[in-house]
Amino acid sequence: MHPHLKPGPLPLSMQLAPGNQLNHFLTVEGLPYQLLHDIMDRAEQFVTLPAKQQKKAPLLRGKTVMNLFFENSTRTRVTFEIAAQRLGADVINLDIRTSSTAKGETLLDTVRNLEAMNADMFVVRHEHAGTAQFIARYSAPHISVLNAGDGRHAHPTQAMLDMFTIRQKKGAFEPLKVAIVGDVLHSRVARSQIHALTTLLTGEVRVIGPKTLIPAHIERMGVKVFHNLDEGLRDVDVVIMLRLQRERMAGALLPSEREFAKLYGLNEQRLELTKPDSIVMHPGPINRGVEIDTEVADGVRSVILEQVTNGIAVRMAVMAMIMGGNTGSAA
Amino acid sequence: MHPHLKPGPLPLSMQLAPGNQLNHFLTVEGLPYQLLHDIMDRAEQFVTLPAKQQKKAPLLRGKTVMNLFFENSTRTRVTFEIAAQRLGADVINLDIRTSSTAKGETLLDTVRNLEAMNADMFVVRHEHAGTAQFIARYSAPHISVLNAGDGRHAHPTQAMLDMFTIRQKKGAFEPLKVAIVGDVLHSRVARSQIHALTTLLTGEVRVIGPKTLIPAHIERMGVKVFHNLDEGLRDVDVVIMLRLQRERMAGALLPSEREFAKLYGLNEQRLELTKPDSIVMHPGPINRGVEIDTEVADGVRSVILEQVTNGIAVRMAVMAMIMGGNTGSAA
Amino acid sequence: MHPHLKPGPLPLSMQLAPGNQLNHFLTVEGLPYQLLHDIMDRAEQFVTLPAKQQKKAPLLRGKTVMNLFFENSTRTRVTFEIAAQRLGADVINLDIRTSSTAKGETLLDTVRNLEAMNADMFVVRHEHAGTAQFIARYSAPHISVLNAGDGRHAHPTQAMLDMFTIRQKKGAFEPLKVAIVGDVLHSRVARSQIHALTTLLTGEVRVIGPKTLIPAHIERMGVKVFHNLDEGLRDVDVVIMLRLQRERMAGALLPSEREFAKLYGLNEQRLELTKPDSIVMHPGPINRGVEIDTEVADGVRSVILEQVTNGIAVRMAVMAMIMGGNTGSAA
Repeated sequence: MHPHLKPGPLPLSMQLAPGNQLNHFLTVEGLPYQLLHDIMDRAEQFVTLPAKQQKKAPLLRGKTVMNLFFENSTRTRVTFEIAAQRLGADVINLDIRTSSTAKGETLLDTVRNLEAMNADMFVVRHEHAGTAQFIARYSAPHISVLNAGDGRHAHPTQAMLDMFTIRQKKGAFEPLKVAIVGDVLHSRVARSQIHALTTLLTGEVRVIGPKTLIPAHIERMGVKVFHNLDEGLRDVDVVIMLRLQRERMAGALLPSEREFAKLYGLNEQRLELTKPDSIVMHPGPINRGVEIDTEVADGVRSVILEQVTNGIAVRMAVMAMIMGGNTGSAA
Repeated sequence: MHPHLKPGPLPLSMQLAPGNQLNHFLTVEGLPYQLLHDIMDRAEQFVTLPAKQQKKAPLLRGKTVMNLFFENSTRTRVTFEIAAQRLGADVINLDIRTSSTAKGETLLDTVRNLEAMNADMFVVRHEHAGTAQFIARYSAPHISVLNAGDGRHAHPTQAMLDMFTIRQKKGAFEPLKVAIVGDVLHSRVARSQIHALTTLLTGEVRVIGPKTLIPAHIERMGVKVFHNLDEGLRDVDVVIMLRLQRERMAGALLPSEREFAKLYGLNEQRLELTKPDSIVMHPGPINRGVEIDTEVADGVRSVILEQVTNGIAVRMAVMAMIMGGNTGSAA
Repeated sequence: MHPHLKPGPLPLSMQLAPGNQLNHFLTVEGLPYQLLHDIMDRAEQFVTLPAKQQKKAPLLRGKTVMNLFFENSTRTRVTFEIAAQRLGADVINLDIRTSSTAKGETLLDTVRNLEAMNADMFVVRHEHAGTAQFIARYSAPHISVLNAGDGRHAHPTQAMLDMFTIRQKKGAFEPLKVAIVGDVLHSRVARSQIHALTTLLTGEVRVIGPKTLIPAHIERMGVKVFHNLDEGLRDVDVVIMLRLQRERMAGALLPSEREFAKLYGLNEQRLELTKPDSIVMHPGPINRGVEIDTEVADGVRSVILEQVTNGIAVRMAVMAMIMGGNTGSAA
């Protein structure tokens, strides 16, 4: 869509103003170690606050947050909506597929119109990589953009809620071994997780999946590739299962669901290969019996529902840091 | 959908905690006489409050109410949304048909995800009987579930707003004769009304309709069956007309609309058979000229629009009693 | 739809109660000169307030505004939603196409049901001329109706935000020459603009377009007609380009888009014919390269995005004047 805006290394200054003030949240790539911890520290505050206060810290009172969802995702949209509501913002949900762009308006004209309505923040979901970045680049200086998923590129708040959950359960990141399993090729979640993990860990980040679902040259991102699940799971502290995104795989040479489950599905037996206190994560929605067995999804090591709860806190944290001018001490 | 969860006699303890604290509101069946009056007393307070205060009694401030509408019903959804807004809650509308369940997620996983987002209350509408009950049974203890209509089973807030309207207009319930007319077979509204009326009345509850639209053995619910409208209307205090649910009657052996109107439509002439001060009710939306004539719908005895207004107050009452820990004196 | 309610001269008393209290806002036609300025004065206050206060002047606290959009228009709906939110109202969005009217309910029954839910204001958008007027006429006395566009008839808040933008940029209206260019035939915006401009100006109002897209006898509205763009633009202070509404022109004998652009599209060269300090307006969404060239749309004379911003302020002003009992000094 915007070939001149190929997503990729983003100048740090685009997300961070002088003093490490967070301006946009487009990708985890390149964000400093300390800033990632600042976001988690802030999320910690929202999680530990008594429910009533948590919900009505009016840090965004008088601000207007617009959810620009070009791609349907009720679940993600709702988590951003709740986060903004609890911070006291006014929230506008825009189902863009049925609006002006359908009348031939350009994306940029749509964005400029919405910013002229005194929006303060855009939460952007789009099927094309680079859209949130594009909007951030060309919108007015007072607007902040949060990437809620762009094509196969990035899903930074998802990655940060995963990091926050790992920190909550494991304490220190540094020595951990983390495995990301499944359809890495089509997963923006995996890309963002890898960027966050390689910034936070000194242990090991592994990706596990069939050759057809692992991007070429992914080792350059600092990960170790395994095509055999049993080998890859050995001694890891954290297993992150990815959703088998059937809706994204048209035309891919991929195994049947049954075959995939057999080779790359996580079951209790395989979980035995990991560390005794390992945890299991999944961004949801889960395909029971495909990438994850019911016993594992509902088992004691699963932190899948905690991820959801933490998703609200992390989104509140990012919004609060962007709008509230809370800089943290990132360096 | 959940055959092991056939709706039917629900243990009272599922809706009522010790001390008769209302936990869920799934069905009117089995609820104590006094609790029904407590709900109406509470609704009375919301109706009589000055509009401005009525709208902003912040009893649900900081609470998140999620409208889970698996079946489209703008009207019912809006009444719950308004009730929650006026109590100060944050409201999230979920059109579930387009969300994760469509991606193959199970109902239970959807529910667990939403409760992990710190929802406090689910308002559930579903085409299958028993869904609200199922969600109440399997969701976290802090979640309250309100049934906004499940299949042919129940629509308890509709029944309670009808009871409240009757009490408002008639004072005492005990001696009343009430007739429910029309398509009782497909009507969750009728089922809930019958449970409420047989708890509240000592007079007589009648159901009137063609054999094909009256459930077999309905007499066991404590009602008298009439197949002739004129006979059934004689001397009643309240006439409740049901909507002819054309959309629910695929394949039923039913009369044509014109024939139905002729045999079971309420017109002014027939209304003469009822008590001189009788009232006419309808849950809406009405089919003018089918089950009810325009002259009757807009006539002086019609309380159809008062029902709508009372619907907000009754939903506020139920929400407030559930969330506010207001027990009333039910026994 | 309501042939007995042909839109046209509306008794002033329908919009204005004694003392010039604004009750509804259905059309600009016939509204007094002073009232138009009162609306603009009020909008000025909302524009100049610091953002935080502007957004939370709680003049509509405890009021319920219902957006009744029978015709899809995300953009217009959002501007009303934001305006109502900033005034502290509860907002209910109703996508009427999927609701009760689809179940055979009459428009009037839908409206009566919504007013029974204690709505205070309806914002109405409908494809048929006269609908907002019809609803205003038949709804309860405490309900106020704002026309957000009805067929080809009127779009009064759009016209008022245009007037407000002109006043902001030009100061006095009286001597101005204003040209409205393009598809006047299908444009409710143009009709409302003409009514406002002929009330406010003593200069000249011109309409420019091909014969097929200019209504017959439009001169009776007090405008001068031009079929040649270059002639019509000469020495004007304000150019208002209309959107080429391809979706409304089925069957019209109209030029191809390319031909239209050549004859009636605004480009920089043509803009030279206007006054040196002229401004360019467009109600949006724009068709770049059709009715307006990119250089003009993004050029220094374009005030298109200011129109959008002013749209919020003007809608806040109208809502505040209606609900707050602010009369102004209209005569």
